[in-house]
Amino acid sequence: MTKIYVFFISDGTGITAESFGQSLLAQFENLEFIRITRPYVNTAEKARQLCKELTTLYKQKTPKILVFSTIVNVEIANILHEAPVHSYDIFDTFIPSLENLLHSHALHKIGKKRDITHSSQYDRRIQAMNFALNNDDGSHVRGYPQAELILTGVSRCGKTPTCLYLGLQFGIYAANYPVTEEDIEHEAKLPASLIPWKKKLFGLTIDFERLSAIRQERYPNSHYASMRQCKLETEQAEQLFSRHKIPVIDTTHYSIEEIATRILNMSGIERKIK
Amino acid sequence: MTKIYVFFISDGTGITAESFGQSLLAQFENLEFIRITRPYVNTAEKARQLCKELTTLYKQKTPKILVFSTIVNVEIANILHEAPVHSYDIFDTFIPSLENLLHSHALHKIGKKRDITHSSQYDRRIQAMNFALNNDDGSHVRGYPQAELILTGVSRCGKTPTCLYLGLQFGIYAANYPVTEEDIEHEAKLPASLIPWKKKLFGLTIDFERLSAIRQERYPNSHYASMRQCKLETEQAEQLFSRHKIPVIDTTHYSIEEIATRILNMSGIERKIK
Repeated sequence: MTKIYVFFISDGTGITAESFGQSLLAQFENLEFIRITRPYVNTAEKARQLCKELTTLYKQKTPKILVFSTIVNVEIANILHEAPVHSYDIFDTFIPSLENLLHSHALHKIGKKRDITHSSQYDRRIQAMNFALNNDDGSHVRGYPQAELILTGVSRCGKTPTCLYLGLQFGIYAANYPVTEEDIEHEAKLPASLIPWKKKLFGLTIDFERLSAIRQERYPNSHYASMRQCKLETEQAEQLFSRHKIPVIDTTHYSIEEIATRILNMSGIERKIK
Repeated sequence: MTKIYVFFISDGTGITAESFGQSLLAQFENLEFIRITRPYVNTAEKARQLCKELTTLYKQKTPKILVFSTIVNVEIANILHEAPVHSYDIFDTFIPSLENLLHSHALHKIGKKRDITHSSQYDRRIQAMNFALNNDDGSHVRGYPQAELILTGVSRCGKTPTCLYLGLQFGIYAANYPVTEEDIEHEAKLPASLIPWKKKLFGLTIDFERLSAIRQERYPNSHYASMRQCKLETEQAEQLFSRHKIPVIDTTHYSIEEIATRILNMSGIERKIK
């Protein structure tokens, strides 16, 4: 398989360079990408050093080298242009057209992608993450009146990371309540502490084989991690969701980002961070 | 101020569309952007509906409408092209050149941006987030041998969200240890439980006025939230870092993403998720 070196380069964090580059790479199969991220290339000196490194790599192995970058500083961008690589930069590509359209000059310096510090948006996401942490295991239900969402499902189906991500990314207050065997045994009755909040409930389910693999990681060869137990629990949780008309999402094939975005989309809850 | 409607549109989560669009918008000052995200526009029907909505908006108010999009499906992209808006799409823009360069055809269907499900990468990030949760308040130090980083600093300076983000984004095992007044009173001695792990320590500090505002939010008018107390604690924490040569980052003006990326960059720890 052809190996292709892919550099994500930025004078900021590199998060956007990775995000758009990875999206594009995901459109190509049967290629091997070696990914390297270089954030904070924010001085001419660092840019020249990186340029030298790319040139050396090019000469040594003559592999394909791709660069996805977000460089706002024009001096640094110009230095990097000297490197013998194929380079895609969103500022280079889109800024001239945007300037024209908006009748405004771009700053060409590191901007605040979101006005996230010193602001209500920053506070909101921290508060929402803390909310997720404080309403995590079903034993604290005092936060439920304040919750916008209460995720429920069997142990290890992805509730906690999803709640945290909903807080981090969207500022949503999400609690979670684990469906335990005890709940399940009572003929798919909704646990008493959830009854007042039925409209906030969102069910997560997962393929039982995948669940077993995840649980094995934590408690190898346990009853808890057995295929049989995982099958039983997921089936009964799904019955619970179905009987009480709780919307449900199967997390098996989704990343945390995708689960969270889908829940937001399905529930119609408005994000607090834009 | 000119109002500009900005739509982030995707047949996937919309996370990349937001990320690259927001980065570009951050380069323009003195404009008011009204941001709207439309994820999962993944059927011709939904695309036509959205196209109609954009057309209506255009006719009603004749405001400027900008679209940042990531549409992999060609049929859907073509429908959206009919809308009377200025549109920037990274697939449209970069895929033809990449196909040419890679001698490969793009899939033009939703790809896995990272091979994050059913994989060691998925497990790693979940494990790393759980690690952060289980090693969060300094009372559990059993995880320290396994930790790659131990963040330390005063209460509410950003340790917990940063640890969680380091897990989520990079798969790093990060614990955190709050510097308490008790630690501080002992003449900037390193707490006993941290001594064996000095090389893993990373200090966070924060402007005392900002800290006070954050603490006020939680415990209004408390001693804990007072300017005087916040000033004292941050000064003494900084002394502790300085005396023990602990690398330190000031979180005041940074988002969680930026704090985490800078720590990774400064510490040289290798990310586990690529």
